[in-house]
Amino acid sequence: MFTITELSTERINRIVQEALAFAEGKTAKIEGEVFCSNLFFEDSTRTKTSFDIAERKLGLQVVPFDASNSSVNKGESLYDTVKTIESLGVNLVVIRDKKDRYFDELKNVKIPVINGGDGTGNHPSQCMLDLMTIYQEFGKFEGLKVGIVGDVKHSRVANSNAEALRRLGAKVYFSGPEQWFDEGALINGTYLSVDELIHEVDVLMLLRIQHERHDAKMSFSASEYHKKYGLTKERERAMKKEAIIMHPAPINRGVEIDTDLVECERSRVFRQMQNGVFARMAIIKEALEKEGYTFK
Amino acid sequence: MFTITELSTERINRIVQEALAFAEGKTAKIEGEVFCSNLFFEDSTRTKTSFDIAERKLGLQVVPFDASNSSVNKGESLYDTVKTIESLGVNLVVIRDKKDRYFDELKNVKIPVINGGDGTGNHPSQCMLDLMTIYQEFGKFEGLKVGIVGDVKHSRVANSNAEALRRLGAKVYFSGPEQWFDEGALINGTYLSVDELIHEVDVLMLLRIQHERHDAKMSFSASEYHKKYGLTKERERAMKKEAIIMHPAPINRGVEIDTDLVECERSRVFRQMQNGVFARMAIIKEALEKEGYTFK
Amino acid sequence: MFTITELSTERINRIVQEALAFAEGKTAKIEGEVFCSNLFFEDSTRTKTSFDIAERKLGLQVVPFDASNSSVNKGESLYDTVKTIESLGVNLVVIRDKKDRYFDELKNVKIPVINGGDGTGNHPSQCMLDLMTIYQEFGKFEGLKVGIVGDVKHSRVANSNAEALRRLGAKVYFSGPEQWFDEGALINGTYLSVDELIHEVDVLMLLRIQHERHDAKMSFSASEYHKKYGLTKERERAMKKEAIIMHPAPINRGVEIDTDLVECERSRVFRQMQNGVFARMAIIKEALEKEGYTFK
Repeated sequence: MFTITELSTERINRIVQEALAFAEGKTAKIEGEVFCSNLFFEDSTRTKTSFDIAERKLGLQVVPFDASNSSVNKGESLYDTVKTIESLGVNLVVIRDKKDRYFDELKNVKIPVINGGDGTGNHPSQCMLDLMTIYQEFGKFEGLKVGIVGDVKHSRVANSNAEALRRLGAKVYFSGPEQWFDEGALINGTYLSVDELIHEVDVLMLLRIQHERHDAKMSFSASEYHKKYGLTKERERAMKKEAIIMHPAPINRGVEIDTDLVECERSRVFRQMQNGVFARMAIIKEALEKEGYTFK
Repeated sequence: MFTITELSTERINRIVQEALAFAEGKTAKIEGEVFCSNLFFEDSTRTKTSFDIAERKLGLQVVPFDASNSSVNKGESLYDTVKTIESLGVNLVVIRDKKDRYFDELKNVKIPVINGGDGTGNHPSQCMLDLMTIYQEFGKFEGLKVGIVGDVKHSRVANSNAEALRRLGAKVYFSGPEQWFDEGALINGTYLSVDELIHEVDVLMLLRIQHERHDAKMSFSASEYHKKYGLTKERERAMKKEAIIMHPAPINRGVEIDTDLVECERSRVFRQMQNGVFARMAIIKEALEKEGYTFK
Repeated sequence: MFTITELSTERINRIVQEALAFAEGKTAKIEGEVFCSNLFFEDSTRTKTSFDIAERKLGLQVVPFDASNSSVNKGESLYDTVKTIESLGVNLVVIRDKKDRYFDELKNVKIPVINGGDGTGNHPSQCMLDLMTIYQEFGKFEGLKVGIVGDVKHSRVANSNAEALRRLGAKVYFSGPEQWFDEGALINGTYLSVDELIHEVDVLMLLRIQHERHDAKMSFSASEYHKKYGLTKERERAMKKEAIIMHPAPINRGVEIDTDLVECERSRVFRQMQNGVFARMAIIKEALEKEGYTFK
């Protein structure tokens, strides 16, 4: 699984339902000895660990791979590295790479490749866990209003989520510094000011300020961002009664969100992380079943 | 478990006895699927590997965590990192961090946290393995004379050990460069010159010269330290017949101890490492049993 | 197992046959709880992962060891590090180190040590997988002509392979830049020009240009090397009908070999990697059986 675009809404729904079943206690263990490996060429705590735990819960053997000590340091291409891992007998890989659509060069790889995030492009497993978290709360997507605040253009989370939510019948609003938005960023939704948006939405998705992705220096400080676009206590009070707060984390406390709100009643930030393991179990199980592996 | 201070002597004795039982062949395997992770934000071979093996021997699933590739590089706080690991379904963590009393900021973490060493403060699992090694030798603590030589003030090992030994009825002596000692360092024992101390003690604990912790340059060379305060062959010959040598390692050979003495008959250096696995098994088992987990 | 020199041809043949049996589906699981660890002090994807998977297939518990976060950074010697790992209860280690014959200082280590590569010296497990790949193809070694092209002097692969092949009855030819050859490099074979060699051999082993090992700057560019000594499409067409191509990888595509030939019909590059797991299973099984461990 590489992008949300390639998935039918039917398939998205099937994965979300399987993930919800895992969240409610369903278990699945693979039959036979099956190896997987997580090739993360970019820093990550939560995504890598989340996949790792999902794999172990499914009964897979997780073969460690340390990008910083690997032969990519000797100039080996991603293709040759993955082909090597495949030749060594690994049956499935999860890959995160800085390069947009790195997976385009992996056509000749025969084992399933799960996209753990590519450049500023896609992050389908994060999307699945977000969808699952919304469904868990509201039991539907149709008619929900979802606001996404932050650097939508550079966020692989925002892109995947906005597309999926629109296709599933939700209405998507965006907000954040206007200079971060252009036509491309607004394909799947409408721009509103933060203070307009906050009254409307059932789901408020805050994006991380991606310091490490901005080429030019930001034109405002962290505290200015918080005041202008962040979730302050005042804005939180203006939210609808049943509305929830989401954030893909890691959070910049006091920037995207007031630090006291991170664990407030309507925050689903840590719930999202819990759900991530279940969403990834569903994704991996689906990929392996397509290859003929069975689970008990 | 964070510090020795928080442990009653009864509890210390219970853990030491359990560790000794493991050393003599007792086994314990946890029931059900239980995940743990070792979050080491400071270099360590022996402590991290020792915990890892202890966890595997208890039947836990060890989820890898690589601090250098984690989101702490994106500025995430320790609290948010640990809360993340907890949310992902990890049931117990061991933490080592450069910061003294890092655990004070982890009050809202619900899973057990085992202290694998904090700053210059505490190292309770090392203390347990040292106590266990002494008990294994002498069958008691009461009345034993224990000498600790080195930079007591900056050693988390020395602090924990001296306090525990004093409370268990042993008499503690210190030695090393006088400028390293002040009132704080001498709470749990008495200062003697190395050559006085060497004749007295049943247990000689050498501390590692912590090059990496001294802010100011040391006022003497490695060979000067060896001559003035180290365990030379001459000093070893002056020890009591049954006395043993301990060192938490890694050893600076030829500094704290003559290289030929590292594996001499009265050295328990590698025995301490063996015991470390058993001590950590006892600590983790206790922590998990308190949470309601059972072992068979 | 440290070097090929120490192995009798009978023992080499026994290991190769065991590895071939694993390749054909034989399985072996160790009885009891046995721990191993891979201490790699040099970058490696394929060798480390290959050992890791071999160990897991044999039912061993693989204890992670991260050289870059280990106490060798505090100046600990290799001996003390390995002795530590042994004391912690690890039952077998695989070591790769930059230092030639690092194993000479490990005489007092009691657990089996498998050499995963030492400096420019030896790489016996790579040799075993290469031998196995040749045997799989031709069913014999006696009378085969094997050409090794590249920096034989600095290649631990070439040294081990040439010696083993000569002892097993094959005829070895070398080629590559003449300045890379001296008497020492030609002990086990004869120098030919690449274009002479290409017509003769049943097995063409290409070596990796070891940029990272050459002290002086290379006197030619990558594309010059390819033209003068590399496997171009023209040279490939001049090979014997049944001849195969081997390369220990990672490959410098377009240098040692034309990129289109990496996965051509006579290439065994990825087959070698597959075989690596089976060869390492055979090596580890032999080492543990010698210590009295049993497999089912």
